[in-house]
Amino acid sequence: MAVGTFRLQAACTRFSSIAPATALHRFPLASSLYSHGLHLGASVSCNAVQQQVQSTTEKQQKQETSQFQKGQKKVQQESVTPRSQDFNMWYLDVIAAAELADYGPVRGTMVIRPYGYAIWEAIQNYLDAKFKETEHYNMYFPQFIPYSFIEKEASHVEGFSPELALVTIGGGKELEEKLVVRPTSETIVNHMFTQWIHSYRDLPLKINQWVNVTRWEMRTKPFVRTLEFLWQEGHTGHATEEEAEEEALQMIEVYRKFAVEEAAIPVIVGRKSKLETFAGAVRTYTIEAMMGDRKALQAGTSHNLGQNFSRAFNTQFLDSQGEQQYIWQTSWAISTRMVGGIIMTHGDDMGLMLPPRLAPIQVVIIPIWKTDAEKETVLAAATSVHDQLKKEGVRTKVDASEQKTPGWKFNFWEMKGVPLRIEIGPRDVANKTVVVSRRDIPGKSGKMFGISMDPSQLHSFVIAKLQEVQDNLFNIAVSFRDSNIEDVSSFEDLKAAIAAGKWARGPWAGSDADEARIKEETGATIRCFPFEQPSHSGRCFMTQNAAKEVAIFAKSY
Amino acid sequence: MAVGTFRLQAACTRFSSIAPATALHRFPLASSLYSHGLHLGASVSCNAVQQQVQSTTEKQQKQETSQFQKGQKKVQQESVTPRSQDFNMWYLDVIAAAELADYGPVRGTMVIRPYGYAIWEAIQNYLDAKFKETEHYNMYFPQFIPYSFIEKEASHVEGFSPELALVTIGGGKELEEKLVVRPTSETIVNHMFTQWIHSYRDLPLKINQWVNVTRWEMRTKPFVRTLEFLWQEGHTGHATEEEAEEEALQMIEVYRKFAVEEAAIPVIVGRKSKLETFAGAVRTYTIEAMMGDRKALQAGTSHNLGQNFSRAFNTQFLDSQGEQQYIWQTSWAISTRMVGGIIMTHGDDMGLMLPPRLAPIQVVIIPIWKTDAEKETVLAAATSVHDQLKKEGVRTKVDASEQKTPGWKFNFWEMKGVPLRIEIGPRDVANKTVVVSRRDIPGKSGKMFGISMDPSQLHSFVIAKLQEVQDNLFNIAVSFRDSNIEDVSSFEDLKAAIAAGKWARGPWAGSDADEARIKEETGATIRCFPFEQPSHSGRCFMTQNAAKEVAIFAKSY
Repeated sequence: MAVGTFRLQAACTRFSSIAPATALHRFPLASSLYSHGLHLGASVSCNAVQQQVQSTTEKQQKQETSQFQKGQKKVQQESVTPRSQDFNMWYLDVIAAAELADYGPVRGTMVIRPYGYAIWEAIQNYLDAKFKETEHYNMYFPQFIPYSFIEKEASHVEGFSPELALVTIGGGKELEEKLVVRPTSETIVNHMFTQWIHSYRDLPLKINQWVNVTRWEMRTKPFVRTLEFLWQEGHTGHATEEEAEEEALQMIEVYRKFAVEEAAIPVIVGRKSKLETFAGAVRTYTIEAMMGDRKALQAGTSHNLGQNFSRAFNTQFLDSQGEQQYIWQTSWAISTRMVGGIIMTHGDDMGLMLPPRLAPIQVVIIPIWKTDAEKETVLAAATSVHDQLKKEGVRTKVDASEQKTPGWKFNFWEMKGVPLRIEIGPRDVANKTVVVSRRDIPGKSGKMFGISMDPSQLHSFVIAKLQEVQDNLFNIAVSFRDSNIEDVSSFEDLKAAIAAGKWARGPWAGSDADEARIKEETGATIRCFPFEQPSHSGRCFMTQNAAKEVAIFAKSY
Repeated sequence: MAVGTFRLQAACTRFSSIAPATALHRFPLASSLYSHGLHLGASVSCNAVQQQVQSTTEKQQKQETSQFQKGQKKVQQESVTPRSQDFNMWYLDVIAAAELADYGPVRGTMVIRPYGYAIWEAIQNYLDAKFKETEHYNMYFPQFIPYSFIEKEASHVEGFSPELALVTIGGGKELEEKLVVRPTSETIVNHMFTQWIHSYRDLPLKINQWVNVTRWEMRTKPFVRTLEFLWQEGHTGHATEEEAEEEALQMIEVYRKFAVEEAAIPVIVGRKSKLETFAGAVRTYTIEAMMGDRKALQAGTSHNLGQNFSRAFNTQFLDSQGEQQYIWQTSWAISTRMVGGIIMTHGDDMGLMLPPRLAPIQVVIIPIWKTDAEKETVLAAATSVHDQLKKEGVRTKVDASEQKTPGWKFNFWEMKGVPLRIEIGPRDVANKTVVVSRRDIPGKSGKMFGISMDPSQLHSFVIAKLQEVQDNLFNIAVSFRDSNIEDVSSFEDLKAAIAAGKWARGPWAGSDADEARIKEETGATIRCFPFEQPSHSGRCFMTQNAAKEVAIFAKSY
């Protein structure tokens, strides 16, 4: 499913219980204004160009305002909280203002709106192709799992039973056995694998599914942790331990590459501590991302399941020597949480900032005119530029709506995180040029004037600039991350680093109890033992024992 | 998600409770043989070429057989029931043998296996692009719907309440309000629409979602009717009745075109009778397909919902005159049932027959050799042909496995419904030619010898033949359909036609009670009032009243 040019849905919602308008909010919540055709008026901080054109009159504005008030139960001119002021509030405001998601009627559920879903589709497009390249095949397992399945693997049931949603009534009747709405599918996958796998010739068996899963979470947050979410879950069965380990490593590398190259998120890849390993796995690999508030986000995991599930489900095969063996397994997943990671890595006070490779709209074209004659030539030029770029595969949109000013549109599409904006006015048409603005460089320094409208020149220019934005977002995130990781050599150091909101990295040879103590005293957990290790790790900062590895500690989502 | 070349999963399953091996079964169930590396042996009816080559020795066969017996609890040499003997059994056998789906552990649920899922992906790829072209945007609504929502629209609750799966426990606690696992999403969509739609400027609002839905069906059948299935559901809101009607018609036309051009199924498009209209709709449009047993399959529907849901949910907008109005709505869906429709339209005694446009593998290449020297040149040629075709976008696979004979492979890939087979032997390599066989023309008449291996010539030849297969499947289905629709002018005629297993078409002006009587006495229902009507319809065959339209009656899935 190619992500083509994305037309904005005229739609509006308020996260009213979450984002009350306060006097401190300085950024207009574009979505509600947009959908009601209101202008921002003088209170709006915006681009210099905004002042040049006001295509609708005071009278029109008044009419629209009164219709709007009549149509609405309650109207507030909402704003987005500055990121520096309240990161959480900012996050929720951006999700509302950029029309990414909305709350569902059931507590903790989320409606993913078209603009948010298009980001997920871009993630799917990339990963699905990579899964197929690495010879995994999509299929579909039922979401209802007999309760007895969940109980078969001891640590799995311990990990998941508090979070289960259970179907107890079907077709008007009480069910004999309660059904679990899948929180993950290892159990049902193993049940089916026992039917498909008999001989070593049936291995490896490598599958994936794109589905919804349900976990009855108590504290929810759009994209990051919701009662129901979308993900892909890969499941593989192998004849040897080595092959399973190789697979688990291969898939965490697919995720790392995706995060770095597509999402521009400089994740740290590593191994989870025993305490943080997936319920039922032997080893969990993870990509850990630093969000704008410096909390860690576990953005994707790959598990070496060993024979834990195959022993629980008796998933055996006949090896080439004619002996029965339990299969070796992996599972790995990335979810809609990744969309939250993108928002929290790149967003700023102006709103969302999308990496070009995943942006549903990479270039928005804003035509600017005063007179009818100007309108005709400007719109023709805008359409022509749009068509050229689209033909070349650039996801482009013209915002030619007449009810909003160009200044309003600048703000709106900045809020939506569109990487490049092209402005075309009458003078530009005369000069056969356009103005190009970068979302990632605020104000005048991000504006490039007199760019040729010539199709091939403009196309190369746009491609180059999109790449620059992509690289810049990544580099900014790398600097931010690296300046917020502290090397520690004592528990005191760690406490100080965590208290300062940073990540702590230090040699670790502590016990589970030591790790638990750190969590209790500081709120930080081991995010991972990074694959990239110093040549010499020294003594554990907690126990003074010789440490084989450094670990990274941080507070996390 | 492009459907690329599709590697066969080495996997095996038995629908043991459904497809017992009987002496009458003449076709070997290829899947279990394939995955265990067994040969079919002399009992197999197969292609003449099979006899030419037997690459493994008797000894090898014995070894493998004994390993196999050791590894299996119970082994049966299963076969596929001939279609003419027992259509239902044939259908289930083909699904097992072609590895399309398997039964899930919960009654009535289905595991869609990679080969079956790839057909669904091909359906998704086509439709998703069409939905986007017609300016619909994908999004995601939660699957848990408060029970109270379902009760709001009177006929909706009546239609769906017997089929609901209910979540009553979440996170270990009894829930205050039971949650419905979505059977369809009109209610939650309306709940959200009330938050997004305020003014006529917010309309039309046109969205779609690709999701799983649950209906607690008592009598299930893989793909055709399962407790959980996959579908897309489109939902739109409009300012006027006319616009909603236009949308409902536009989408049934998208479905018709898909069925005809992609699935090669000559559906009849029409309007449902009042009794058969969707629970909550004003009008339901449908595409009706005739299966190989001449039962009708409702393969896709598009509903004009009028204001039924908007009144129930108070989904209002301010029109351009400043008046509050209820929105006009549509919904439309196609599901994994379509895969069942493809199987039952085109399949034959040899197994599945896939229309090339939706086939996960369009061309399978079978290299044939005896000596090691031959193997090298033959495999090199096969790989080269594969790579050329793949480069040109033809979904191609080489089956170079050494454990099966070419004859076995011929049968296996015929069972899987692959439209074209290319055979390459040592003589072909010497002549720089290949042999091409069509799945839709059995035996020698479907075989074309001495086709040039030259890349451009072979590519054009393959493209042309794929188109011929596509057209032929469609034409065969049209003839079959047309020879099985009887024009009737009395109830007696209708009874005779239905008793003969046919569809009956006749002028209709009966009441709901008349329609119910026909169902009771014959088992047939009105499938639709077809859009294509005779110039003159005459008097109702049941009531003798003047009839405005002819209706089509049939037994259905």
